[in-house]
Amino acid sequence: MRADVHPFIAAAPDDVEGLARALRDGCIAAADIVAIIGKTEGNGARNDFTRTMATHAFTRLLAGELASSERDVEQGVMLSFSGGSEGVITPHYLVCTKTGTESRSEPATGKRLALAQARTRAFDATETGTIVMVRETAAAVRRALGELHVSPDDVHLVHIKAALPSVVVGTASPPHCTMAYARAASALGVAVALGEVDGDALTDDAIGTRLDLYSRVANVSAKPGLCVSEILVFANSLHWDSPRRIHHAVMRDIIDIEPVRALLAGAGLSTCGQLAPDQTRRIRAIFAKSDADPTHVIRGYRHTMWTDEDFSDMRYSRCVVGGVLAALTGTTAIYVSTRAEHMGPSGGGPVAVIVDDE
Amino acid sequence: MRADVHPFIAAAPDDVEGLARALRDGCIAAADIVAIIGKTEGNGARNDFTRTMATHAFTRLLAGELASSERDVEQGVMLSFSGGSEGVITPHYLVCTKTGTESRSEPATGKRLALAQARTRAFDATETGTIVMVRETAAAVRRALGELHVSPDDVHLVHIKAALPSVVVGTASPPHCTMAYARAASALGVAVALGEVDGDALTDDAIGTRLDLYSRVANVSAKPGLCVSEILVFANSLHWDSPRRIHHAVMRDIIDIEPVRALLAGAGLSTCGQLAPDQTRRIRAIFAKSDADPTHVIRGYRHTMWTDEDFSDMRYSRCVVGGVLAALTGTTAIYVSTRAEHMGPSGGGPVAVIVDDE
Amino acid sequence: MRADVHPFIAAAPDDVEGLARALRDGCIAAADIVAIIGKTEGNGARNDFTRTMATHAFTRLLAGELASSERDVEQGVMLSFSGGSEGVITPHYLVCTKTGTESRSEPATGKRLALAQARTRAFDATETGTIVMVRETAAAVRRALGELHVSPDDVHLVHIKAALPSVVVGTASPPHCTMAYARAASALGVAVALGEVDGDALTDDAIGTRLDLYSRVANVSAKPGLCVSEILVFANSLHWDSPRRIHHAVMRDIIDIEPVRALLAGAGLSTCGQLAPDQTRRIRAIFAKSDADPTHVIRGYRHTMWTDEDFSDMRYSRCVVGGVLAALTGTTAIYVSTRAEHMGPSGGGPVAVIVDDE
Amino acid sequence: MRADVHPFIAAAPDDVEGLARALRDGCIAAADIVAIIGKTEGNGARNDFTRTMATHAFTRLLAGELASSERDVEQGVMLSFSGGSEGVITPHYLVCTKTGTESRSEPATGKRLALAQARTRAFDATETGTIVMVRETAAAVRRALGELHVSPDDVHLVHIKAALPSVVVGTASPPHCTMAYARAASALGVAVALGEVDGDALTDDAIGTRLDLYSRVANVSAKPGLCVSEILVFANSLHWDSPRRIHHAVMRDIIDIEPVRALLAGAGLSTCGQLAPDQTRRIRAIFAKSDADPTHVIRGYRHTMWTDEDFSDMRYSRCVVGGVLAALTGTTAIYVSTRAEHMGPSGGGPVAVIVDDE
Repeated sequence: MRADVHPFIAAAPDDVEGLARALRDGCIAAADIVAIIGKTEGNGARNDFTRTMATHAFTRLLAGELASSERDVEQGVMLSFSGGSEGVITPHYLVCTKTGTESRSEPATGKRLALAQARTRAFDATETGTIVMVRETAAAVRRALGELHVSPDDVHLVHIKAALPSVVVGTASPPHCTMAYARAASALGVAVALGEVDGDALTDDAIGTRLDLYSRVANVSAKPGLCVSEILVFANSLHWDSPRRIHHAVMRDIIDIEPVRALLAGAGLSTCGQLAPDQTRRIRAIFAKSDADPTHVIRGYRHTMWTDEDFSDMRYSRCVVGGVLAALTGTTAIYVSTRAEHMGPSGGGPVAVIVDDE
Repeated sequence: MRADVHPFIAAAPDDVEGLARALRDGCIAAADIVAIIGKTEGNGARNDFTRTMATHAFTRLLAGELASSERDVEQGVMLSFSGGSEGVITPHYLVCTKTGTESRSEPATGKRLALAQARTRAFDATETGTIVMVRETAAAVRRALGELHVSPDDVHLVHIKAALPSVVVGTASPPHCTMAYARAASALGVAVALGEVDGDALTDDAIGTRLDLYSRVANVSAKPGLCVSEILVFANSLHWDSPRRIHHAVMRDIIDIEPVRALLAGAGLSTCGQLAPDQTRRIRAIFAKSDADPTHVIRGYRHTMWTDEDFSDMRYSRCVVGGVLAALTGTTAIYVSTRAEHMGPSGGGPVAVIVDDE
Repeated sequence: MRADVHPFIAAAPDDVEGLARALRDGCIAAADIVAIIGKTEGNGARNDFTRTMATHAFTRLLAGELASSERDVEQGVMLSFSGGSEGVITPHYLVCTKTGTESRSEPATGKRLALAQARTRAFDATETGTIVMVRETAAAVRRALGELHVSPDDVHLVHIKAALPSVVVGTASPPHCTMAYARAASALGVAVALGEVDGDALTDDAIGTRLDLYSRVANVSAKPGLCVSEILVFANSLHWDSPRRIHHAVMRDIIDIEPVRALLAGAGLSTCGQLAPDQTRRIRAIFAKSDADPTHVIRGYRHTMWTDEDFSDMRYSRCVVGGVLAALTGTTAIYVSTRAEHMGPSGGGPVAVIVDDE
Repeated sequence: MRADVHPFIAAAPDDVEGLARALRDGCIAAADIVAIIGKTEGNGARNDFTRTMATHAFTRLLAGELASSERDVEQGVMLSFSGGSEGVITPHYLVCTKTGTESRSEPATGKRLALAQARTRAFDATETGTIVMVRETAAAVRRALGELHVSPDDVHLVHIKAALPSVVVGTASPPHCTMAYARAASALGVAVALGEVDGDALTDDAIGTRLDLYSRVANVSAKPGLCVSEILVFANSLHWDSPRRIHHAVMRDIIDIEPVRALLAGAGLSTCGQLAPDQTRRIRAIFAKSDADPTHVIRGYRHTMWTDEDFSDMRYSRCVVGGVLAALTGTTAIYVSTRAEHMGPSGGGPVAVIVDDE
């Protein structure tokens, strides 16, 4: 099996031309696509329609290519778009593919990028954001690990589009059926599956409150209306073939570049300062989570991201993390999404980077 | 003579308590203050009243301390507040002081921070933003250099609050009497005074258009209603005493950290990655200019800072530069102001850092 | 011939379900649709993608219904979406239809709503916003009037999606090839066609400057990338059959309700205060243009719509006009678009209302 | 005793020149001022510093005029500034005065404007927003009524700057110690004092939830840091002399102009449509409360004020109410503040108008 990630710059939220050309040219086969993950240029909030626009455009393209229904595309391919390309962040999308059916015979140069999809069972509104969601998410992640034959240490990113089912009209909304709790429970599910957090000791009370319990590799967004959580596990495996590897780090706050420098060093990229252009070219994809520190303080000094009511803290924190990672790596194609409950420590967040072989 | 810069964190735009305490405690003498330069938490645009609020609060404090009129304070002390503390940037202010009257006898450890104020003559609206303003600004900067007995190479920051006189009611506004041209002409004035640009070859046509002509040390904001440009030159001099030195660099774009790393290295600060806490503590002040690249492209990729009409490009670029410099230096007390016509190359901007001796 | 306008409320920018159901139920025949004009919930600025989203969704629906290509739909049906449903304005769309081929035999109760489409020839960038565009627009409007056999006095709304061709890459953009000039020239074209302005005396200099010259019925938006202006003339005609009539008024400023009250009175709607619910139900559609007075003054007092840089004057003026017209009519389904150069007096704008027979 | 309200337009948040001139000219005596209530041009949210700016400027002016300390001014005069002059609303302030000490001998033309100040005792954080605050507010309002010798029916506006004491550092914030509950409890206090709501039956549970219980005349804002609620009662009294009277109405939603028309008619102002200029001149002050309907629906149609995350629902609702009342009255000097818990029905709010005698 061979996994790959293909980055494309988007000229607009519904610009699918890059992928369309790659499909026409035979660089990518539509049937190999397991996920398309992208940043669009909306505000990332409720009135951000750019995510829907992108989803529709890619669904339509793939349905045409695969001669299948749009519904089948939605079932088979994870389409995950995050709004908000603040500051230097360039709107872009990452096409994740899996090719072939057999294991690699001889692992010449070690572990390589491997991908596995998983889906939870459907949740109802009362389960969402609770320990039930933690457990079901953990079970789904474990299934993906089993499929990949990798250990938890080999997992560097678990990207989740978390279920947030609609509440039945006329029914009171359960208190945990919110975007925040859906993200929190999903991230804890990843942490439990990977042994980062002890699942047996975990109770509902911890969800959204015990922020010292976290995953170092979860990257979760919640999608209103979705009943099943969609999961994509990124690992390195001896049994897969790929010209890429994935690495991860955890920032303790949104200007904490040292762990990211260590990540890059681990990938063979010299990072005393900014990567040189030939090194930047080896960066295939960057995933991060951001948050404006809820204490209103970073490095001892007050910040105003929460009190500035003309611009949301979410947009500010993405702008900062995007700028900081761009300054370090030399590329502005950075997938940063906000709200990182149980994903890295409070005020910080995980980073994953996919790097080409030399 | 001894120059110093004292940083204070502000809890609100009119929070002068830090300076008030330093005056009460005798750490700073009111008569020594030549300038207060600060970042406030407004939007940096026309409806940003936080600058006025800060100016009034400091004027009132100093008038009380000096037993002089508020008008005299405004004449004698440069009060320069820039709105916009986006992202991690902390609202803060820098109190610049000059003490003593005699030259230092023996320059033990080389050149030290030196400060000189200057003022242009009053401009009328027809002169503002023209070659007249370039020449008068250059003359004023040269007077400051003469006073300091330093060469142009020793100048690392020229902070200017540029005149932008009100147009007489009922009169058409001259085309160059705008914030953009006032900044541009002032920055070119600095460049001419320091020999960065050939003043003899310069004509009105170049102002605001020949962006390849620029100063590496100018940091100019225009203030509507002001008739005289106020100038503060920061240099290093063998004849001054101070526990600080100033250094400068020029970023080619807003994620260009390598020149800043070189600046820090020149100041004896190891910058493989982020400064360690004991090095961060030696950073006394950071001044920068930012701009969202007008080509809509950074490092080959599209950015959306100009097309996002829910948030201004000015706020975005400050947010990015603040985050990037904080990631490198470990401090969020960064004075970044936007619009950098003829201050560094288009899309980039100058940075100056004041560093404590070890 | 019979004209009609069918209003639908939209739950999202791409919500076409109302029309889809009306087509399924046979209430509307797809072949009869000449235009769909709607308000979407974006910001109305460059990064408003809701307009494109709506256009795509309706194009797709109609292409399916008509078994024609999406390109043919775009050629045959005017799809005109304006972003910005500020305040009480509800996102909605108006489906305009024409049915039958013969004239009405006996005009029982006078003039009835009549619709005629027209298109200009293609413009190039150098013609856009100039007297050429004025003349071609006037010629196209005159053709529509000829088709309808109505006099200029019978025309109450000329809705235009004005051409704004892309500038050839590498070519300097002609100064008049802007949204503002494209709107201005198109509005003057309407005024010339209807005899509101003397076309012979008109020169390029007047476009965008002689704001005392204006149409009382033009409602123009410019669409970047469009080469041909699309025009829809709304008139009342003795020769048409319809259960509706259209009326117009001109507001002198954005709180000027008296002309609108007179309009409603002319339509047989008592308007001492807000319309009673049974009268509100007779309102079929409301079209308006808004502008924040460029003098910064309304009724002698300062307003802050131009100096508030956290929210655009365009959004403010739509919010005000939407609220004011809703308060008068009792409905929030109001199509208000901004920037009204030569459409009503400066700071004001035209209003048109389509009313059902009792 | 004679009460009056003097309106002034403000050119900036700290523009006190209008009042300063009136004091110099002897039109107003500083000692007569009981309150200054104004609209400033901020965003009305946490980072709106324009309110503080105005408060400081007026405190300073009055301290100078009265030769008293600024602290004494703050204790003696209600300074109440509300941020947000959206749309057509002009930034302005209303100086409320009381003159003389004796009752009027002969009530020639009926009841006249009367003013009474009151203050609650200091609240601590645990009492704020609870039934304790309801009762203390009611008691204070009753004291004011006793002082005025008026019945509850004569009260048309109770303007309150509600206490919202700071929580002791290191202590958990009591759940009711919020702006919302402080406003809610204060409004219910007014309702209880005036007999609009049965105080005996009221419990903590009703505060903020039983929105069917409300005052028709309360206009409350909460001020963080304030320990004592400041109250100003506006009534009409046979025993007072004034060239003005006050009237009130309740809007059921933010486009509900009919009750306001009835109010104006009761004041002898013809209001079939907009007031004629000579009638507009008789309007002395307009006070209103606004809210974006929390059901997301107005008159059966969806609005987007809560889902548009680029602009707050508070700013939208003020913009609408300001525009609607300006369209009816012909003036843009309208004091509208947002969040109207228990002030009029949910989604609507009270309006009070002070009108000159003919």
